[in-house]
Amino acid sequence: MNLTDPYRDENGDKLREECGVFGTINAADASAITALGLHALQHRGQEAAGITSFDGTEFYSQRGLGHVAENFSSQEAIADLPGSMAAGHVRYSTTGGSGLRNVQPLFADLASGGFAVAHNGNISNARTLREDLVKRGSIFQSTSDTEVIIHLVATSRYPTMIDRLIDALRMVEGAYSLLVMTPEGMIACRDPLGIRPLVMGKIGDAIAFASETVAFDIIGAKFVRQVEPGEVVQVTHEGKVTSLRPFGERKPRPCIFEHVYFSRPDSVFDGRSVYEARKAIGAELAIENPVEADLVVPVPDSGVPAAIGYAQASGLPFELGIIRSHYVGRTFIQPSDGARHAGVKRKHNANRGLVEGKRIVLIDDSIVRGTTSMKIVEMMREAGATEVHFRVASPPTAHSCYYGVDTPERSKLLAARMDVEPMREFIKADSLAFVSIDGLYRAVASTKRDRACPQFCDACFTGDYPTSLTDLGETENRQTEMSLPVSKVLANG
Amino acid sequence: MNLTDPYRDENGDKLREECGVFGTINAADASAITALGLHALQHRGQEAAGITSFDGTEFYSQRGLGHVAENFSSQEAIADLPGSMAAGHVRYSTTGGSGLRNVQPLFADLASGGFAVAHNGNISNARTLREDLVKRGSIFQSTSDTEVIIHLVATSRYPTMIDRLIDALRMVEGAYSLLVMTPEGMIACRDPLGIRPLVMGKIGDAIAFASETVAFDIIGAKFVRQVEPGEVVQVTHEGKVTSLRPFGERKPRPCIFEHVYFSRPDSVFDGRSVYEARKAIGAELAIENPVEADLVVPVPDSGVPAAIGYAQASGLPFELGIIRSHYVGRTFIQPSDGARHAGVKRKHNANRGLVEGKRIVLIDDSIVRGTTSMKIVEMMREAGATEVHFRVASPPTAHSCYYGVDTPERSKLLAARMDVEPMREFIKADSLAFVSIDGLYRAVASTKRDRACPQFCDACFTGDYPTSLTDLGETENRQTEMSLPVSKVLANG
Amino acid sequence: MNLTDPYRDENGDKLREECGVFGTINAADASAITALGLHALQHRGQEAAGITSFDGTEFYSQRGLGHVAENFSSQEAIADLPGSMAAGHVRYSTTGGSGLRNVQPLFADLASGGFAVAHNGNISNARTLREDLVKRGSIFQSTSDTEVIIHLVATSRYPTMIDRLIDALRMVEGAYSLLVMTPEGMIACRDPLGIRPLVMGKIGDAIAFASETVAFDIIGAKFVRQVEPGEVVQVTHEGKVTSLRPFGERKPRPCIFEHVYFSRPDSVFDGRSVYEARKAIGAELAIENPVEADLVVPVPDSGVPAAIGYAQASGLPFELGIIRSHYVGRTFIQPSDGARHAGVKRKHNANRGLVEGKRIVLIDDSIVRGTTSMKIVEMMREAGATEVHFRVASPPTAHSCYYGVDTPERSKLLAARMDVEPMREFIKADSLAFVSIDGLYRAVASTKRDRACPQFCDACFTGDYPTSLTDLGETENRQTEMSLPVSKVLANG
Amino acid sequence: MNLTDPYRDENGDKLREECGVFGTINAADASAITALGLHALQHRGQEAAGITSFDGTEFYSQRGLGHVAENFSSQEAIADLPGSMAAGHVRYSTTGGSGLRNVQPLFADLASGGFAVAHNGNISNARTLREDLVKRGSIFQSTSDTEVIIHLVATSRYPTMIDRLIDALRMVEGAYSLLVMTPEGMIACRDPLGIRPLVMGKIGDAIAFASETVAFDIIGAKFVRQVEPGEVVQVTHEGKVTSLRPFGERKPRPCIFEHVYFSRPDSVFDGRSVYEARKAIGAELAIENPVEADLVVPVPDSGVPAAIGYAQASGLPFELGIIRSHYVGRTFIQPSDGARHAGVKRKHNANRGLVEGKRIVLIDDSIVRGTTSMKIVEMMREAGATEVHFRVASPPTAHSCYYGVDTPERSKLLAARMDVEPMREFIKADSLAFVSIDGLYRAVASTKRDRACPQFCDACFTGDYPTSLTDLGETENRQTEMSLPVSKVLANG
Repeated sequence: MNLTDPYRDENGDKLREECGVFGTINAADASAITALGLHALQHRGQEAAGITSFDGTEFYSQRGLGHVAENFSSQEAIADLPGSMAAGHVRYSTTGGSGLRNVQPLFADLASGGFAVAHNGNISNARTLREDLVKRGSIFQSTSDTEVIIHLVATSRYPTMIDRLIDALRMVEGAYSLLVMTPEGMIACRDPLGIRPLVMGKIGDAIAFASETVAFDIIGAKFVRQVEPGEVVQVTHEGKVTSLRPFGERKPRPCIFEHVYFSRPDSVFDGRSVYEARKAIGAELAIENPVEADLVVPVPDSGVPAAIGYAQASGLPFELGIIRSHYVGRTFIQPSDGARHAGVKRKHNANRGLVEGKRIVLIDDSIVRGTTSMKIVEMMREAGATEVHFRVASPPTAHSCYYGVDTPERSKLLAARMDVEPMREFIKADSLAFVSIDGLYRAVASTKRDRACPQFCDACFTGDYPTSLTDLGETENRQTEMSLPVSKVLANG
Repeated sequence: MNLTDPYRDENGDKLREECGVFGTINAADASAITALGLHALQHRGQEAAGITSFDGTEFYSQRGLGHVAENFSSQEAIADLPGSMAAGHVRYSTTGGSGLRNVQPLFADLASGGFAVAHNGNISNARTLREDLVKRGSIFQSTSDTEVIIHLVATSRYPTMIDRLIDALRMVEGAYSLLVMTPEGMIACRDPLGIRPLVMGKIGDAIAFASETVAFDIIGAKFVRQVEPGEVVQVTHEGKVTSLRPFGERKPRPCIFEHVYFSRPDSVFDGRSVYEARKAIGAELAIENPVEADLVVPVPDSGVPAAIGYAQASGLPFELGIIRSHYVGRTFIQPSDGARHAGVKRKHNANRGLVEGKRIVLIDDSIVRGTTSMKIVEMMREAGATEVHFRVASPPTAHSCYYGVDTPERSKLLAARMDVEPMREFIKADSLAFVSIDGLYRAVASTKRDRACPQFCDACFTGDYPTSLTDLGETENRQTEMSLPVSKVLANG
Repeated sequence: MNLTDPYRDENGDKLREECGVFGTINAADASAITALGLHALQHRGQEAAGITSFDGTEFYSQRGLGHVAENFSSQEAIADLPGSMAAGHVRYSTTGGSGLRNVQPLFADLASGGFAVAHNGNISNARTLREDLVKRGSIFQSTSDTEVIIHLVATSRYPTMIDRLIDALRMVEGAYSLLVMTPEGMIACRDPLGIRPLVMGKIGDAIAFASETVAFDIIGAKFVRQVEPGEVVQVTHEGKVTSLRPFGERKPRPCIFEHVYFSRPDSVFDGRSVYEARKAIGAELAIENPVEADLVVPVPDSGVPAAIGYAQASGLPFELGIIRSHYVGRTFIQPSDGARHAGVKRKHNANRGLVEGKRIVLIDDSIVRGTTSMKIVEMMREAGATEVHFRVASPPTAHSCYYGVDTPERSKLLAARMDVEPMREFIKADSLAFVSIDGLYRAVASTKRDRACPQFCDACFTGDYPTSLTDLGETENRQTEMSLPVSKVLANG
Repeated sequence: MNLTDPYRDENGDKLREECGVFGTINAADASAITALGLHALQHRGQEAAGITSFDGTEFYSQRGLGHVAENFSSQEAIADLPGSMAAGHVRYSTTGGSGLRNVQPLFADLASGGFAVAHNGNISNARTLREDLVKRGSIFQSTSDTEVIIHLVATSRYPTMIDRLIDALRMVEGAYSLLVMTPEGMIACRDPLGIRPLVMGKIGDAIAFASETVAFDIIGAKFVRQVEPGEVVQVTHEGKVTSLRPFGERKPRPCIFEHVYFSRPDSVFDGRSVYEARKAIGAELAIENPVEADLVVPVPDSGVPAAIGYAQASGLPFELGIIRSHYVGRTFIQPSDGARHAGVKRKHNANRGLVEGKRIVLIDDSIVRGTTSMKIVEMMREAGATEVHFRVASPPTAHSCYYGVDTPERSKLLAARMDVEPMREFIKADSLAFVSIDGLYRAVASTKRDRACPQFCDACFTGDYPTSLTDLGETENRQTEMSLPVSKVLANG
């Protein structure tokens, strides 16, 4: 889920997963477990966190800006969230007090009782649905697309809560992994294409749901299975688990970028270890694009598994030629004299003694705007590297994501503006190569891409969007997106 | 420097460097440069930070709890610290408002003008000196040993500031790397044994001093040389640099633990790359203590360079069998059901897919209390490792440090309580080995230890303290320290 | 307006007006004027304040706990509220972050554009209306009765905003003085009985509305007239003022307690100076209940005007026998030894030198629970007063208010529990007398009470409620209120 | 006591007492009692407050900006101040974190143990003493003149604490009422002229000291006597009370402005009820300067007692023609249109209904700069007053105070710049009169002023300073003060 404007520009030179969800039911300390689970998902959203719990009678909600640990590590915070059912959310968010309105889980008092929802994804016809709802008298509290779901449920004419929810979800398009809490229990749903991840685990008698399996590791839960694309799983307070498939069967299209960057390397996504997938991409890269060099150097930390894979496949030594500081925090005031590139150096510093006089293969997971890549290449040269060869563990990122990932607008994506050779010139590397789209599929799915019906959502690389993008029609970004293969968009809608 | 009680007990299972200092003079943006320099030294002290600047007329001071970035990244903070000379300090500190009194640089208005000092180290006769000063009417503002230096300077009968400072330093014993600011300029001093590090750099016309060379990288300065043990370097506002050697010549004893753990791997300490030193320790460890296994796994992040060295020397593959979370923060409330060891898992999680069914060599930099090591071995086994061999890139840590490093009291040090085999049983590893003291010297100095006159301070491993420890006589820790080689202590005092 | 539970128990021994409103349109600095106007109304609500402005395109809103001066005196706060139309609100409120949801003005994005409302009063069928709205799919953000009005407007089927508002107000019962802002301009409405006050002023080309005339004094505006009971005044951005009377003609029943206590003495209410009205009540009291004594002493500050009136009518000297501290703030920890009644003494202290050996007439505006009165009588005796005669400038307060005034539940009202003589015994005065209801009417309206159709709402004295009280039927307070003259309630509903 | 610059310019149009002190010993809840006592003295210093306590072993200190109630009303704050001896201080202070260094009580660890001091007054040779101390090696923590006393005690060569304190006080000149705490007990001292007040009370077995008797009322203590000018009272933990007179006998000169404005009306100062003294001044004023008028109107609140006295002596009715708001707080942003004089109106508003068409006698306690007086006269005229006669209950304030009162520099004092008739023109009153200096003495001491040896310090009216003013010689204010009767200053020094 995201704000109404998914085109927010950030300085970051990475795509950013915008949310993580975690929930558990029939657990003695549901909110303490949820806090730990969310903490394990902190990399999926660092600006705000919220938890809602239910004690059989009342719902309790706490939300805050900042990390999970800042908001939910104290005894007081957990004591304010009693009950055996809880769900939480981490997200990127606008700062400031009013921003709290958009922090999830969202909650509403419906005629049938309380209704809480945590959402990972983005509803691509949210604006259109919202306008219809407002015309009929609904009053929105936030600018979140997720609130549309609540109002659709509130105004549905079906009698039961599960039917109202399915009725609502039939009207939305886009990507969603949802955790819903009602007085009856917890409902986990994943959109028909399964674009965003959602997994199910078990800890004692409790059932848990999470965006990634790593959340189960931290709480000592067992990973049971993923929630299937298009599946609606209901869990009652008595422990009864029901699975519905109300949207018919579709071929899944999970997000391939979870393997490239979003998920933690110690998670299992779509049946495969993310660490092994990344090493395999690094190995494909070494095979597709070999180079004579002295050292394989990862851009830390995201490039490390692919670099290990590259080093093992190529036989070159793996070395920490760049040291990453763990204390990044805010941007400092730049002194006027000297201190050039102090910004990038605050985060990454060349290991001069190692790099000097060497030919380096730099491995990174992706190139978004290219500015960081350019600075890192320059830093290697200033530290005395004689050659710098840049290898990227994903194909060129040339298209925006509308499914809950924070992407720069298309004109800011380096790969949308130029081919590989100009990109090499831009970042000033001696050579530059990306893994091919088929190499990527081989690494993560042991097969090449099915062009007629791809096994993943890879729209950020190919522009092949698996759903229609209703709201886009009304924005000026339409023009930016003119190069979209429109027929395909419609075909997949 | 530290509080009067150097035996503070922390949960951490690492020795902790207690301070870092940075200063610059004749720089257009002295305080902005100092903020960046301190940020690069953040790993040396994370609980408080302070900067003092001088604009030719007035001194300005800002201090705060927390990280450098939280206190000194804003334009306002830097604007409040005008002038072309500035020095700063990062430290571990007690929390709370009153704790701010101990945050450095300390400042006093002396008859000769302002006097600011930032101190890395610990004065081992501070209590004795303080009692004398109070009897003569001096009033202390803080519990910091550093304040003793200021009062000694204030009450010295010498006429010039430099003579008063040397007069004061002749009365102190212990370890100190000091940056002093007076209206005349900056003075950098290092104790006669050079226990704590201090280096000198140049950026344009400005001179800079820092605890580690990495601070020069981040600001784009050139590393010139280290401040020599026993050296007093004066720099005036006109740029004149003078070197004094008022304490006579002694054989230096720099802290060997800077190579093992304290310094950043991208720093150069005592003429050698810290990263290369750590890799060399790993290689010595592989040669001294080989083992048949499938994977070499570092305990991240401090064990990584030694693990790379071990892997290269042994021919075993280097793999990330433990994934470290960057979001550690506070301790969470532990749920009662399941979630065992959630604490250690919040920081370190097994990469189950990789580890399962494998024989593992775990590499860590040191063992202090052993509790974390025990949990990590257990985590590896739970993830399916068939054998876990623990290798430590330093000798057993069996003695407390009194030179500005936060060590647990001796009875809490695992190696002070038992030999290697019982330690192996304690951490439940299949085998356990430490690098030998000579192996360590070979790795960091290409020669074995000179027993008559060791090249480093290695008291934490050997108990061979290079200075007398006057204040210790009065504490109950005296008994704990009875095993100290007292004759040596006196000989070196 | 108030929270859903109007029976909130406070320690205070006064009835408390729960809100004040102020708004202005076509003013160059609308929000700065509104901040000053609200500040003049601070006595009507001290726990939270909010201002919403409109700049021709967007609405801006700032709300905060605490006083107007704490939230709206800075240049930044005013700069965040641009535009030539603004309205604000002061209120009593629950504390804590979530309490901010109930701070007014409330705002909603309706299909017709933004809609902001500030409300003084209480809707007595809010719960019933809310349940109906929720059943039809409306989602409430707050527990405020005012939000009912917004949802009624949002779901009205009338096409224009003014018709939707009138449609909504026809469904509500109770007391309301409203300021509404829409993109078209400002609308001020007062309920058909005019229970809560609302006045209209002019400053240059700008029109202003306020709860009391004193707000006009502070901003230099001219008092034009009151908004009539049942009147709806529309003001456009072009300055066109339209008056509607959509609810038919009813005989007004303004709140008589505004004269007794709520309004500031320098305000004009219902055509009469409040200061003069209070002096007149004091004079009636002296005539109805004379007593031989040495001094007339007001309970400061609210008893002062009546005490001056009493002194002038009786010929006894007016003296400050009780000194009030302006620094009240929080309750202090009570020391165990001595310091008895330190609580009341923090606020009121006997002027011992004056009181000692004297016969005192104490004048207060009202008695609610009686505990403060008891302590003040005791304080006078401890200071040496030989006789203490208590005179009250209102009839006994024996009934709760449901029209936006914070009253203790009925069982806590001293006058609901006992007659005058037991009350005298309770507060331990030598004599006790209240002004009669007819004396009160003579003082504030120069005529006695019209029993068939009273000129004011005096339900707190008489139990004669001028509207039906729909929500009351469902609460247990129903029984407490069995003594209500039900037929009258229905007749007036 | 005050900051080094006693000439601080404030917007306020009143002289401001700069401090209040309170202490108690042998009390079960010493710090809770001290908090209440300080609260009763809040009018003597509103910007910062501090309390230090002693539990038989350790001293505890809490200081904060803001009111006593904000800092010391919570159970936590009191629990952090254990022990049966405590002393506190309220003061005007610079804002900001660093300002806390100047908040009292000041505390130091001396060789003889802890030493805490709270000071009301100002040491007029503080700068000179400080320079001497710094030259000898003392390091100051604050810019407070009070710290000079601590360093004089620390460096005194006498063996006992009481002798060291007396030794120190012999070197200081100026005004001081001190509460000192040492491990042996509490010491209360008043300077030889008794310029600032200090009284002694008893509550159970506990002894208490305070700046004013009102502090005893609030805690239920009995007023015993004043601490005499030049007296040093020692109280031990065993309850032994000793009185010393180490400075010889001098004729006292208590501050006459305590009667005029500083003290609360319910206090007893120098043996006389302050309320009665102020009424008596008002009566003198009516006799010395009668006028034909309709109403006597006080400028609230400080003018009220004198106005009652004036009304009773003149037979004119006392009326509240000006209503004071209790919600003053910060200055608001002034709107550009209308709202003229909103600043003064926020605090004082004309009671228009009363004033219109009337001849008014306005009574205020003093005129400092005259700007507020001018605005109030104008406000009365705008409200319709036909004549405005201004009467002031003190002589013209023509000289600065150097004894702990915050006065504007002399050039800003209206009476230093012009005679009475130009003053009348400046404030635009129909007539203006001040009480005569002899009238003032008659009112407060029942006798006229002894010109040879005045019974009070009245330097602010007469320029007749009772001590030498050593530090003044070095400042540029010297010139401003050239009109000082220098011979007298020396004679009294």
